[in-house]
Amino acid sequence: MKRIKVAIVGFGNLGRGVRRALAGCPDMELVQVITRDPKRVRREVKNVPVNDFRSFNREVDVAILCAGSRQDLFNSSSPMRPPKSLAASSRLGQGPFFARLFNTVDSFDTHARIPDYRHYMNAYAVMNRRTAVISAGWDPGTFSLERIMADAFIPGSHRYTFWGPGVSQGHSDAVRRIPGVVDARQYTLPVRSAVARVRRGQNPKLKPGEKHTRLVYVVSEMAADRKRIEREIKAMPNYFLGYRTRVVFVSRARLLIEHKAFPHAGFVLTSGKTGSNKALIEYRCAWESNPEATAGILVACGRACVRLNIEQRYGAFTMADIPPAYYSPRDGAELLKNFM
Amino acid sequence: MKRIKVAIVGFGNLGRGVRRALAGCPDMELVQVITRDPKRVRREVKNVPVNDFRSFNREVDVAILCAGSRQDLFNSSSPMRPPKSLAASSRLGQGPFFARLFNTVDSFDTHARIPDYRHYMNAYAVMNRRTAVISAGWDPGTFSLERIMADAFIPGSHRYTFWGPGVSQGHSDAVRRIPGVVDARQYTLPVRSAVARVRRGQNPKLKPGEKHTRLVYVVSEMAADRKRIEREIKAMPNYFLGYRTRVVFVSRARLLIEHKAFPHAGFVLTSGKTGSNKALIEYRCAWESNPEATAGILVACGRACVRLNIEQRYGAFTMADIPPAYYSPRDGAELLKNFM
Repeated sequence: MKRIKVAIVGFGNLGRGVRRALAGCPDMELVQVITRDPKRVRREVKNVPVNDFRSFNREVDVAILCAGSRQDLFNSSSPMRPPKSLAASSRLGQGPFFARLFNTVDSFDTHARIPDYRHYMNAYAVMNRRTAVISAGWDPGTFSLERIMADAFIPGSHRYTFWGPGVSQGHSDAVRRIPGVVDARQYTLPVRSAVARVRRGQNPKLKPGEKHTRLVYVVSEMAADRKRIEREIKAMPNYFLGYRTRVVFVSRARLLIEHKAFPHAGFVLTSGKTGSNKALIEYRCAWESNPEATAGILVACGRACVRLNIEQRYGAFTMADIPPAYYSPRDGAELLKNFM
Repeated sequence: MKRIKVAIVGFGNLGRGVRRALAGCPDMELVQVITRDPKRVRREVKNVPVNDFRSFNREVDVAILCAGSRQDLFNSSSPMRPPKSLAASSRLGQGPFFARLFNTVDSFDTHARIPDYRHYMNAYAVMNRRTAVISAGWDPGTFSLERIMADAFIPGSHRYTFWGPGVSQGHSDAVRRIPGVVDARQYTLPVRSAVARVRRGQNPKLKPGEKHTRLVYVVSEMAADRKRIEREIKAMPNYFLGYRTRVVFVSRARLLIEHKAFPHAGFVLTSGKTGSNKALIEYRCAWESNPEATAGILVACGRACVRLNIEQRYGAFTMADIPPAYYSPRDGAELLKNFM
């Protein structure tokens, strides 16, 4: 069997996770890493070519985009027509740039901008007979398709998504930007009593702060005013304001030892009725390593992406547009026999 | 918008559930009921034509097959070539018979025979440019696609399916066949300690009897020997032998009052590792009415079935072959905006 040739674009935690996940997939092989900093990555990746953004090789079945930040993937301020030149598409971000050249998989996760991102990715992919699987991972990703399915199976139902316990990268970054903060780790925790009410089918109306609490470990500068830092954290709109937030100051050593992992978890609960009878669907995941878990899903999406492209299904797809069997390395007969 | 015209074939608990589910779907309408016993059904269904198996009307977008028993859908002893005449296909069961005439959805659930059933349904559907969604519901159905996805996202993982607490129709029927038994209701219960071990990621090896226990409520004839009935129940191979089984004798009145509902529940747990880190996915459902819940899923599959057929995708599909968005009555823009 011909193996699927994969490129990894961007080699941070997620890119490393993808490399590890590919090692567990005999039907796929890593053929190159594309990065802004080939020198650094070559120290870590010995047996695979490492290229920068100008020198990469084109023989790739699918590129998995593991950009470090959201802006790297898509930084358009929304000119409504996709530019035609490669240079111009590169200004839109790595997503549109690579969608012209390769089949791609990405985990673009700015929920509000997904329709806009899809618009560009679809245009570029169709234009170049490519397939782009966008916004893959667990949320957006599997959580999205579970929300869609449960809503279809139980019409009129209520949907709840809870996250945690786990580290939120975005919130940790936000705390790090406060003057006097050296490092920080933010844990999102679901409120147990709220989860219990939803599981009992009570369909409560919950404000964001009633669903989650926040726990922040902060390493501060020696001379910093801890009271002021704590106040500033708790007052940050969107991030912490309105949430029960606990701030714990720790030493740098303790942060590095006790909080070096990136666990995360979450669940989607859909609660409603069939006739006069209660109906509940819950999808839950718990990961000791969030980047590795996301990587595992992206790699399976890479397999699906190549299949779609072989079927000449060009354009942008989310995980809600993909038949679940396409993720699997197993053939149809085995799935029918052992997984139905 | 043109509404999807649906026929219900077979009007037992499941058929009634489909009728109720359709009432909650403004994009679909029930246009006829097909049954072996139109006289009985006409007393219950006033505003829709009720036909027998010979007199039904052909203007139907999709027929949802709600046959009373497994044999009704498929009773082939496996001649490997599908017969060509309609009469011969009717001898194979309602599945093959209706796959020639309509797009169909069914919940064929004899797991071991699904490959064989698919073979026939696919042949008939392709031959007649029809689309057949087979083995839909929750198990097989959503559980199947969750097993397939989780296995793809966490390669090398362990899979566990638990059922209950809930009523098993098959086991209840088996008890009813014992001489001296007037009526019976069998509850399947998951073993909590086994579930807890799986959730902790211990990947235990579990025999069937270590995963579930069985609780049977029996109404016996006045003169019957209860000790003998209990012994016979516990000795039934495949059904009760090897399971911790509790038998409780109750009056007919109590059975009808306390056990008239058909609740069921179940969950699929997939537990494995990404790198050296634990990873867990759990999909769980809990239904106060199993037939109504299954009906809700079948109706959503009806919508998907018609879409596939419009795209000229003919043949047999399981839920693992269907993009999740196809189940939804919502359009793509709304899904992107509110469900991703």
